[in-house]
Amino acid sequence: MMINMPLFMKYSFFILLLVSFVPGKSSQAQPPRGPFVISPQVSADRSVTFRYLAPSAREVKLGGSQFGASQLPMQKDTLGIWSITVGPLKPDIYPYSFTVDGITVMDPANVAYFPNERFKASLVDIPAEIPMVHALQSVPHGTVTYEYYPSLEGSTGSVVVYTPPGYAKNSKEKYPVFYLISGTTDTEETFFKVGKVNLILDNLIAAGKANPMIIVMPYGNPMARIAEQTGQPKPADLLSREGEDAERRARLFEKDMVSNLIPYIAKNYRTIEDRDHRAIGGFSRGGGQTLRTAFGNMDQFSWVCSYSSYLSSEEMEKRYSHIYRDVNKTNQQLRLLWVSVGNEDFLYKPTTEFLDFLRTKGVNHKSLITGGGHTWMNVRNYVSETAQLLFK
Amino acid sequence: MMINMPLFMKYSFFILLLVSFVPGKSSQAQPPRGPFVISPQVSADRSVTFRYLAPSAREVKLGGSQFGASQLPMQKDTLGIWSITVGPLKPDIYPYSFTVDGITVMDPANVAYFPNERFKASLVDIPAEIPMVHALQSVPHGTVTYEYYPSLEGSTGSVVVYTPPGYAKNSKEKYPVFYLISGTTDTEETFFKVGKVNLILDNLIAAGKANPMIIVMPYGNPMARIAEQTGQPKPADLLSREGEDAERRARLFEKDMVSNLIPYIAKNYRTIEDRDHRAIGGFSRGGGQTLRTAFGNMDQFSWVCSYSSYLSSEEMEKRYSHIYRDVNKTNQQLRLLWVSVGNEDFLYKPTTEFLDFLRTKGVNHKSLITGGGHTWMNVRNYVSETAQLLFK
Repeated sequence: MMINMPLFMKYSFFILLLVSFVPGKSSQAQPPRGPFVISPQVSADRSVTFRYLAPSAREVKLGGSQFGASQLPMQKDTLGIWSITVGPLKPDIYPYSFTVDGITVMDPANVAYFPNERFKASLVDIPAEIPMVHALQSVPHGTVTYEYYPSLEGSTGSVVVYTPPGYAKNSKEKYPVFYLISGTTDTEETFFKVGKVNLILDNLIAAGKANPMIIVMPYGNPMARIAEQTGQPKPADLLSREGEDAERRARLFEKDMVSNLIPYIAKNYRTIEDRDHRAIGGFSRGGGQTLRTAFGNMDQFSWVCSYSSYLSSEEMEKRYSHIYRDVNKTNQQLRLLWVSVGNEDFLYKPTTEFLDFLRTKGVNHKSLITGGGHTWMNVRNYVSETAQLLFK
Repeated sequence: MMINMPLFMKYSFFILLLVSFVPGKSSQAQPPRGPFVISPQVSADRSVTFRYLAPSAREVKLGGSQFGASQLPMQKDTLGIWSITVGPLKPDIYPYSFTVDGITVMDPANVAYFPNERFKASLVDIPAEIPMVHALQSVPHGTVTYEYYPSLEGSTGSVVVYTPPGYAKNSKEKYPVFYLISGTTDTEETFFKVGKVNLILDNLIAAGKANPMIIVMPYGNPMARIAEQTGQPKPADLLSREGEDAERRARLFEKDMVSNLIPYIAKNYRTIEDRDHRAIGGFSRGGGQTLRTAFGNMDQFSWVCSYSSYLSSEEMEKRYSHIYRDVNKTNQQLRLLWVSVGNEDFLYKPTTEFLDFLRTKGVNHKSLITGGGHTWMNVRNYVSETAQLLFK
């Protein structure tokens, strides 16, 4: 049937040529743009069709390690629309991009994107029959707020804050706070836009599985922000991922958290300000920052969650030996020390070594080894698991 | 001096090859990514260098109509970094993109992006010596909150809300509300991320030039959202920009605003709920929706701002003749009817015809004709001008 359709009918469902503006006929103001394609299109059977309009491209591929091969060739039709259908896929949120004649691009037809300082990827959400942890459901919703706060060296910090359903109305209730730090080259938006922590918490709170809490998501690299705002050369900052500068970077983050961010949140939100009502967690570089900030400030946090990250035994010995020298005190202070990682994560081995280290030294902790790699699919599940343990 | 530098030194400032993860040496978790370039780089003289790494590309151009020609060729160096320096530029925020072998892409090295349903562009901010209306300054800052609300036909609406500095602390004060609607294919984020309304208001309020207010930024196309959430075919929606469906779209927006969004905001924010403390404004398609929603609901809004948009005399006669039939009543009801447009805007002519129509009919209004086109540069200034008039 498709084959016998006239070309226009066949494609009118997938392509739109915006007419030029016709004065007097309609008052809707629209500059001529287009043609447009529909992408991604998720089918009922959980297969997904991706489309990209590029009549003069020689080769277009779909990138996204979760689709099987790392690059899947797309097919061009007579109108110049490249497309591919993959799946049925396991329900989840997948990052993807197109590689067009060797150039990696986001999907221009999709507003769901992955905030990151270096790569550009789009997101496609394959819903499950039984809603996943991050599914948008008909439950009371919290809100997500973008804030500025006074940060280090006169710079202005940026932070994203989740408040639980009812926060605005229950104007006398105070809440515990979970500080949540994303990874290298992620931004303060990534735990919101990719991690979906707002929806995860909305669902858990509605199901009575998590206590209402405030979640504070800072930007993980104040050194880069200071450089940007004070006109210091950015490149010097970006070159410093190892050695002295990496330690300076970690100390700056910790200092900003303890001296600026926690006091700012305390002042502007209804929080319970003691260590038993303050948690810290993070993914990847943010997991390392979590462990350093927690171990370096044992008076601040009782709940510590490291997702897909670790500290080396060398660093533990050099900086944080108090954690295992007086292990009884540590075990009394930390109500949760959580470490989770996927067995395909490139950090799986050092993370299991960190778990061995904790075990050998008698430091109480909870661990979760899952399948999967260094992905936000795993992180969403880790957030869901740990949020159910916090402040209980 | 640059010329005599060894190649490594010369480029070490601009390119970073991320080393693979070295277990035990550093605990910072970073998957191998890169190499990376620095882009955009704004110099003290307001020239900007854009860089894009693509060793195998045949041709890379800088796109962005504000840079002069619409596409400027970039030059490739021996490492495969394409670059171009433009300017000095007039201070402002400019959207731009790269066209790589005919493919338009965002700048992968830049997190500042233009939220839009169809095109992908990055943003570069050239600061002025005397801070522009949107400059991040050391003044008290308001916050920007992402919310869900119950919308039409069981769908969940998304909206972005600015609250002024001190909102959280002055827990008894009530505020007027400005509803602000962005253009075709923009999202509810565009007035925040590109329009910078939060910074504009922070600056105006700090200078005593605007009254503190709440600004509510809805998504302009509830028809598309309903389709998406209820599994109706998206393409059918996208095809309907004219005629019956355009009117249905406009009526749906108006209905959602009056029946769902205004009550939701009234319930969840400390607002003053009468027409004298409620304004509506919008850009492009959002300007048309502003005029329709205001003229169709004269009991709701006393302050009306149309940026780069208009209604045709045919539509005024067909639907909104009450505006000029009882002109005295209209002039009593509307404390501000603002229409602004740039003289290079593709909607300049119909907008001036709309102004003539208002003048002929004796409908009081304020108009501002500026230079420039259908751009967010103009919109930021229009928001700044009108915010100073509202609720006074």
